[in-house]
Amino acid sequence: MIDYWKGSPSLVPRLERVVSIIAETVKSAGFPFDDLATAAARPAGKLLRPALLVIGSEFGARADPRRIERLAAAVELLHMATLIHDDILDEAPIRRGKPSLHSSIGVKEAVLAGDWLFSRCFLLGAESAGPENARGLARLISAICSSEIAQDAAKFSFDASPRGYFRTIEGKTAALFSLALYVGASEAKAGKKTEQSLRRAGYCVGMAFQVMDDILDFESEEEVARKPVGRDIAEGLCTLPLIYALQSDFTGLRAALEPLTAASRSAARVAEREAFALAAATRVVELGGVDRARKDARRFTSRALGEIERLKPCPARDELASLAERLLHRTY
Amino acid sequence: MIDYWKGSPSLVPRLERVVSIIAETVKSAGFPFDDLATAAARPAGKLLRPALLVIGSEFGARADPRRIERLAAAVELLHMATLIHDDILDEAPIRRGKPSLHSSIGVKEAVLAGDWLFSRCFLLGAESAGPENARGLARLISAICSSEIAQDAAKFSFDASPRGYFRTIEGKTAALFSLALYVGASEAKAGKKTEQSLRRAGYCVGMAFQVMDDILDFESEEEVARKPVGRDIAEGLCTLPLIYALQSDFTGLRAALEPLTAASRSAARVAEREAFALAAATRVVELGGVDRARKDARRFTSRALGEIERLKPCPARDELASLAERLLHRTY
Repeated sequence: MIDYWKGSPSLVPRLERVVSIIAETVKSAGFPFDDLATAAARPAGKLLRPALLVIGSEFGARADPRRIERLAAAVELLHMATLIHDDILDEAPIRRGKPSLHSSIGVKEAVLAGDWLFSRCFLLGAESAGPENARGLARLISAICSSEIAQDAAKFSFDASPRGYFRTIEGKTAALFSLALYVGASEAKAGKKTEQSLRRAGYCVGMAFQVMDDILDFESEEEVARKPVGRDIAEGLCTLPLIYALQSDFTGLRAALEPLTAASRSAARVAEREAFALAAATRVVELGGVDRARKDARRFTSRALGEIERLKPCPARDELASLAERLLHRTY
Repeated sequence: MIDYWKGSPSLVPRLERVVSIIAETVKSAGFPFDDLATAAARPAGKLLRPALLVIGSEFGARADPRRIERLAAAVELLHMATLIHDDILDEAPIRRGKPSLHSSIGVKEAVLAGDWLFSRCFLLGAESAGPENARGLARLISAICSSEIAQDAAKFSFDASPRGYFRTIEGKTAALFSLALYVGASEAKAGKKTEQSLRRAGYCVGMAFQVMDDILDFESEEEVARKPVGRDIAEGLCTLPLIYALQSDFTGLRAALEPLTAASRSAARVAEREAFALAAATRVVELGGVDRARKDARRFTSRALGEIERLKPCPARDELASLAERLLHRTY
């Protein structure tokens, strides 16, 4: 969805090259999943992570554009791999408006496809990044897995705290946003101070992004978000709006969630679970959970903008600031 | 199973340190699978891959022993990760005499546990290997995944050729044996010629090892191999003894396999499938498939010994030659 970047003419050709690298990688020998190869050549996502890496690299003068684009492809491949394995974990039938990979090619094949993408991400990373950044990429994947493990273990208990929630989204989203900006800047030798500011800015943009993502689960129409409202609750996830709503009306909301808890859910049929989840989601909005969560998203965005403002003025700085704003106000 | 190495007194303390590194890694923050952590501290496998890496490093004089042991741990973590994901693919209830990880912790958790081990393998690799060897490790994982994908796609068709079989085991086994010896030697600066000989020797040892592994599936008692005879056939795998037996009596053996082919197997119950597989395995032995496959294992071992003989005399050379012999004559 390179259209998303049409307001940034300098980014478009670079992201097009990133998409080509991804498509070539996925089409290369030994990866016989045609559906995935076709999908990779016409990405449905916003390519946010590779865009951040490219933007980060524009803060330095010494980037080799081809290397930067290969690293940008590596972070998107990493993201694709985690989505594929996540969908298996979540038993999600739909991803970005299309059947998820494991529904179309099978669970086993999706495990292997994810592994293969991980390995290609590492290969691109090891080929195109300095050793320190290659290690950063490896550490990041551990962090993402740990967050997913923690999130999966907590499913259907609906008892997260804001603090636990922030820790989880830090690992699963903010760390990758942060790494993407940092690696771009660091490979372009932007200078220690700029690199560290970008690392912090990426973290805040990522936190805001994930809070917004979780908010959209409560308010979007299916046609827009391309997943049904209340899907996260139906999957047993306790995201920020729900956490805040539980603080307002613990007893009432717990009762609404009861049919979805670990003990009860085996009994409930899928359609019933979705109806319960939709009712609970509606109640979360009424209780102001979404409004409170939106305040946190705004706070993270302000912190990101504060970091960005301290960077030396340049087109990449404006690009990044406008992106942070745009992500806060997105509706899908 | 460090006992396996009791004939090699110099290797034992080094493999003990490798096991400690693995155990520390698996026990570290963010990896909450206690069963796996406990299992990692008392490995059930032979630790062949880390032993090969350590042996390889003894051909050079410039290895930092701690770095070598960390890399040895990395290759074993990689092997553990592929076993975990493999067991999901094969729906194997038992691994090394114990319930496989996904049977005890669940498929989703096993996907994540494997991902986490992959990421730690890369991290150890990126921290402890030179950039060229880190890239080699990444390329290897792609090759392993590709082989698994090809193997999975061919399941229950029972129509492999010896050539296709050798290509598959090259990717899934020989490449890792080869890389382990090579990386050890290369990190110890053993010299280009020695490193290349070890790469080829590792390849041949790995090919012989996998052929033997597939042979043992046809002749071992369950107590020894810790998996039932004919298990591979029941899982739809077409390994070398079966390929050769099909060359001797295509019509008869295809008829015996018919209830297990993709078209029929959904109808057959598990116990029935195992009985069909056992009958087919018995017929493979009668048709001389195992004997012919054993000749190939001997041939690969001879080639390995030829490569090893050309290396300069040293204790590591004798160790490697005796290991190649021992693996050919193993019964489990």
